[in-house]
Amino acid sequence: MPVGTAATVKAMLPETVRATGADIILANTYHLMLRPGAERIAKLGGLHRFMGWGGPILTDSGGYQVMSLSKLRRIEEHGVTFQSHIDGATHLLTPDRAIEVQCLLGADIQMVLDECTPFPATHAEARSSMELSMRWAERSKQAFQRMAAPGQALFGIVQGSVYPDLREQSAGVLQDIGFDGYAVGGLAVGEGQAAMLDTVAVATSVLPEDRPRYLMGVGTPEDFFDAVERGCDLFDCVTPTRHGRTHQAFTSQGTVNLRNTQWREDKSPLDADCDCPACERFSRGTLRHLCISGEMLGAMLLTLHNLRFFHRLLERMRAAIAEDRLTALRREILEPMTRRINA
Amino acid sequence: MPVGTAATVKAMLPETVRATGADIILANTYHLMLRPGAERIAKLGGLHRFMGWGGPILTDSGGYQVMSLSKLRRIEEHGVTFQSHIDGATHLLTPDRAIEVQCLLGADIQMVLDECTPFPATHAEARSSMELSMRWAERSKQAFQRMAAPGQALFGIVQGSVYPDLREQSAGVLQDIGFDGYAVGGLAVGEGQAAMLDTVAVATSVLPEDRPRYLMGVGTPEDFFDAVERGCDLFDCVTPTRHGRTHQAFTSQGTVNLRNTQWREDKSPLDADCDCPACERFSRGTLRHLCISGEMLGAMLLTLHNLRFFHRLLERMRAAIAEDRLTALRREILEPMTRRINA
Repeated sequence: MPVGTAATVKAMLPETVRATGADIILANTYHLMLRPGAERIAKLGGLHRFMGWGGPILTDSGGYQVMSLSKLRRIEEHGVTFQSHIDGATHLLTPDRAIEVQCLLGADIQMVLDECTPFPATHAEARSSMELSMRWAERSKQAFQRMAAPGQALFGIVQGSVYPDLREQSAGVLQDIGFDGYAVGGLAVGEGQAAMLDTVAVATSVLPEDRPRYLMGVGTPEDFFDAVERGCDLFDCVTPTRHGRTHQAFTSQGTVNLRNTQWREDKSPLDADCDCPACERFSRGTLRHLCISGEMLGAMLLTLHNLRFFHRLLERMRAAIAEDRLTALRREILEPMTRRINA
Repeated sequence: MPVGTAATVKAMLPETVRATGADIILANTYHLMLRPGAERIAKLGGLHRFMGWGGPILTDSGGYQVMSLSKLRRIEEHGVTFQSHIDGATHLLTPDRAIEVQCLLGADIQMVLDECTPFPATHAEARSSMELSMRWAERSKQAFQRMAAPGQALFGIVQGSVYPDLREQSAGVLQDIGFDGYAVGGLAVGEGQAAMLDTVAVATSVLPEDRPRYLMGVGTPEDFFDAVERGCDLFDCVTPTRHGRTHQAFTSQGTVNLRNTQWREDKSPLDADCDCPACERFSRGTLRHLCISGEMLGAMLLTLHNLRFFHRLLERMRAAIAEDRLTALRREILEPMTRRINA
């Protein structure tokens, strides 16, 4: 899922996002509740209409951004009080309010409010945090049953830091409550790749196979292989869009910094393997000129390319799973990228 | 002609520029010779390929930007020496070099180097400046005959400030040299609307009817009617793109500032009469949110709309000329816009 933080996948027209292969996008409850406000979006016809996106939208609950972006957080049993990073105003986010906001937005897939456990955390801290998230998950489910429209779905989020027993316990509690899908949360926060993957493996081994399993906030092509091999189905990350705006491109030969002097007279496409308009119609020389000149078109083309690159990668992974050759595809795709990085 | 200063119509993919109705775009010789450099664009396959634009391109000669953007200008018989506004490097632009640069770019319509006479100027100053421009026009024509490719065209530029006798004299000299088209230059520099239109009328009364007449750097919907009534055929202006990036929209009911609080819960389209994606798929409420949030998509959508607005206006003007009802169309279009402005 491309990330459409403030009701826009940055630097992209919605039709262009769709053309990269995106079926579903993510939008951020935290940003939208602060600006322009969930009630305002509801008055304007809901988030799909507001952002001109006809496909499904998943919204997070806001819990992660409260921890990473806002100030003066106070977490209590009933919810979390925080200050807006935009204007400093104090807001209260409760499990009920997080669902209410997502219903006002009209999100197709909604997420329970959870506490994103800081890393590192002791076992006792992680247990206490996870148990609070599980009580919030129960309250979220009740709020969702009262407020959601037919066809909308609610996902629970497994917490428990890097402790296998806590992750198993969390996944069990969530299944007892019963959700349409399950996310693995609180990862990619500094625990390292090995700990992240071990934790994913523990969580997915307990989660039901007939429900989507969503690894939040990940990641890179290598991450996708690692996570899919461990049973994950769904991802979101700002990587392709943020890298695009900072002039970094993902290519079949590794990442490329388009600001580099070496491209200034390079007639070759960004990625000869890619079918996106940036690769089909522009040279690296042009892309470098646009980036160095600070032209919006540079960010637009690199975002477009990165999204197309990610969607093509995942299309190929889906096909490889059907043909039972994911391991071979991993080698085909990652080896040329790694050679370049190590060269 | 939308303006594609630095090899991009700002905030627009080339295919989107085309979709607004643009047949031809303008690119700036001054900007491109400084960055990335004309020789570099030639190495990369020429400007059409460089910027991904398959249609015709008109390039100006750089004379206007030397006066408006650069520093330490010294105008002499052989050319103008100036300092780059980017890095302070000293450059020399001569009539020959201006044509050479435009040939390296591969421009379909090229402009002679002229001195943009400052305003105000005495009659003697304006005469001296115009006569220099005419000598440069002669040298430009000779350079063009040596260097240009088949199918490329060269336009002369009428100068002479606001003095009818000088404008007539300039138009006569240019016709004696012989050009594929003729521009009226050195206007919209502070002389006021009445003086500008009187000067345009003098110039077009002398210029041949079977050649395109191009009023440079203009303008607004009212300007187009004023200039077309006086025989002008071709225009370029940054108005639609620059206004778009600063969140000002041209609409059938006048100009609209999308940052205004009054639009925050407005479900109506920017312009109910417009068929562009910004108007068909987004509300004023969304556009205001995108602008206030500093999202690129705000600038992208408003640029797209403004270009579509200008191209539709000119499409309607062309049809009205064929039906001999331009005066009626002027009233139909300008009256609702003026009512709003005066309200």
